[in-house]
Amino acid sequence: MPTVRIVTEADLRAAVALDADAVACVEQAFLALAGGGVVMPPILRLDIQDSNGEVDVKTAYVPGLDSFAIKISPGFFDNPALGLPSVNGLMTLFSAKTGLLEAVLLDNGYLTDVRTAAAGAVAAKHLSRPDARRAAVFGAGVQARLQLEALALVRPLEAATVWARNADKAAACAADLTARLGIPVTTAASAEDAVAEADVIVLTTPSTTPLLRAEWLRPGQHVTAMGSDAEHKNELDPAVLARPDVVYVADSLAQTRRLGELHHAIEAGVVAADIPFAELGAVAAGAAPGRTDADQITVADLTGTGVQDTAIATLARTRVVQADAGQAFES
Amino acid sequence: MPTVRIVTEADLRAAVALDADAVACVEQAFLALAGGGVVMPPILRLDIQDSNGEVDVKTAYVPGLDSFAIKISPGFFDNPALGLPSVNGLMTLFSAKTGLLEAVLLDNGYLTDVRTAAAGAVAAKHLSRPDARRAAVFGAGVQARLQLEALALVRPLEAATVWARNADKAAACAADLTARLGIPVTTAASAEDAVAEADVIVLTTPSTTPLLRAEWLRPGQHVTAMGSDAEHKNELDPAVLARPDVVYVADSLAQTRRLGELHHAIEAGVVAADIPFAELGAVAAGAAPGRTDADQITVADLTGTGVQDTAIATLARTRVVQADAGQAFES
Repeated sequence: MPTVRIVTEADLRAAVALDADAVACVEQAFLALAGGGVVMPPILRLDIQDSNGEVDVKTAYVPGLDSFAIKISPGFFDNPALGLPSVNGLMTLFSAKTGLLEAVLLDNGYLTDVRTAAAGAVAAKHLSRPDARRAAVFGAGVQARLQLEALALVRPLEAATVWARNADKAAACAADLTARLGIPVTTAASAEDAVAEADVIVLTTPSTTPLLRAEWLRPGQHVTAMGSDAEHKNELDPAVLARPDVVYVADSLAQTRRLGELHHAIEAGVVAADIPFAELGAVAAGAAPGRTDADQITVADLTGTGVQDTAIATLARTRVVQADAGQAFES
Repeated sequence: MPTVRIVTEADLRAAVALDADAVACVEQAFLALAGGGVVMPPILRLDIQDSNGEVDVKTAYVPGLDSFAIKISPGFFDNPALGLPSVNGLMTLFSAKTGLLEAVLLDNGYLTDVRTAAAGAVAAKHLSRPDARRAAVFGAGVQARLQLEALALVRPLEAATVWARNADKAAACAADLTARLGIPVTTAASAEDAVAEADVIVLTTPSTTPLLRAEWLRPGQHVTAMGSDAEHKNELDPAVLARPDVVYVADSLAQTRRLGELHHAIEAGVVAADIPFAELGAVAAGAAPGRTDADQITVADLTGTGVQDTAIATLARTRVVQADAGQAFES
């Protein structure tokens, strides 16, 4: 019987942090995706309307990696009223040679949080202006915090603002981030104000109606929209993608055409369905242009890819094996 | 942090057997599927050609059940040369109310084996003639054994034959089954001979070319084809489904049109793509006719459904909780 390593969230938090290694790991994942040979099937999605819940299952095989992950990510949005987090789940890691289960990472969504924030850093690293110093974050949850932390790893941030529908949560988030990053993080009076001041804008909400209007954007800004990971979610005014000065980049074009901000722009009829937009991996590899002018507005549309899950789970497994963390289980 | 129960294959084998309870559990799953309200997304499929491997992920939400399963089933067909089984995997069980992980069932495919064989019994119970006494099994693997055992739970079997490409394996399988079932199980000289003698024929192979020819069938027989769970697999001559005396029943019509024997009959142009064939759950519920005449030939096309996985995982969890088996893990 095979031996499976079972690892708790506490051990995973000790093993993997949102740091330069995590960003490099996720950058490698996007490079692999651009390099070809990756097998990344469409996301399995289970909707449980009775409980206001949804489950995404993501996976990818990356040639050259010994293992592949299958990540199960439930989001049940009535949980906060029960005193529970909305997002949970686990990652499972399998041998790419035999399909045998190698590890069960009981991360309750932690590794997803890290790899998602790291993708924001990869996008900003390759698309935002190198001199970007001011950030705005939409939303006040876990990703609002982590995305700004990730951004600070790749750009010389000096100040940031937080905008969220709930002003109290925005203030708490801003206070947290001030303490964590050691830079002034304040709340914005409005979404428009937040955008006006920022070089980089990161949208981290589950909004189903656009929050950022096209006319608010100004030359040189970078926008990362990472909230839209399902058909009904939408953070960007579709007109953003139709602006002639916008350079649009997808994490996975197959996914953003179905699930991302691009999907809404196509639905709205302002962008053609078959435009071969660049993907982040190709931009990171130098195979697609990305930003070519300081005055362009870059937009990264991140839906979350299985290749990120395989990458972060592989990193986590390597670290927990080194630390001899977790428990061996004869399955 | 939530408590997760981790259960090994040994504990699961002690908790769940292929018996009348397992058949009733899977029958309930099909009834639920027919009753409406079940959410069963398309199967997630990952192909790893470098290793001759494939992974299926299946799930279903069943209203009224407190939990839903997500089942990960890798099949790596070069494994036997490495001394490893081809099929492995695990089931995970989540709260249908909160999405929290409740149990990790490290079954290495055992529960899948049980629920797959149980579906064969459900099909035979509702479609084969009640006086069916002689069976033929194509294939000599785990499912060949379990399908005949399952059939013996619902029909008064007196004798059976095994046919497989590898005569030695067929002989070993027949000897095993003779010992297990206490009836004479012999090997057939040919596939045609096996069919000629049988009231019920069960096909359990991963064949990619048809093994059972339409002209071999005779009135009153029942055929269960459970090997085709992917586009390229095919056990029945497409002409079988075109016979006017054949009553075709799918486990899930959405799946058999894409993956099952029906898919090949549609591709061959002998069956129209939009025929609203009955599903097994509707037949079991009495809402669709199934066999209406002793001389009809019934064909059950089983691709394996997520609702079976949720049902068997729920049964297994109930049993291991009763037995206090498995290990609690603070995730």
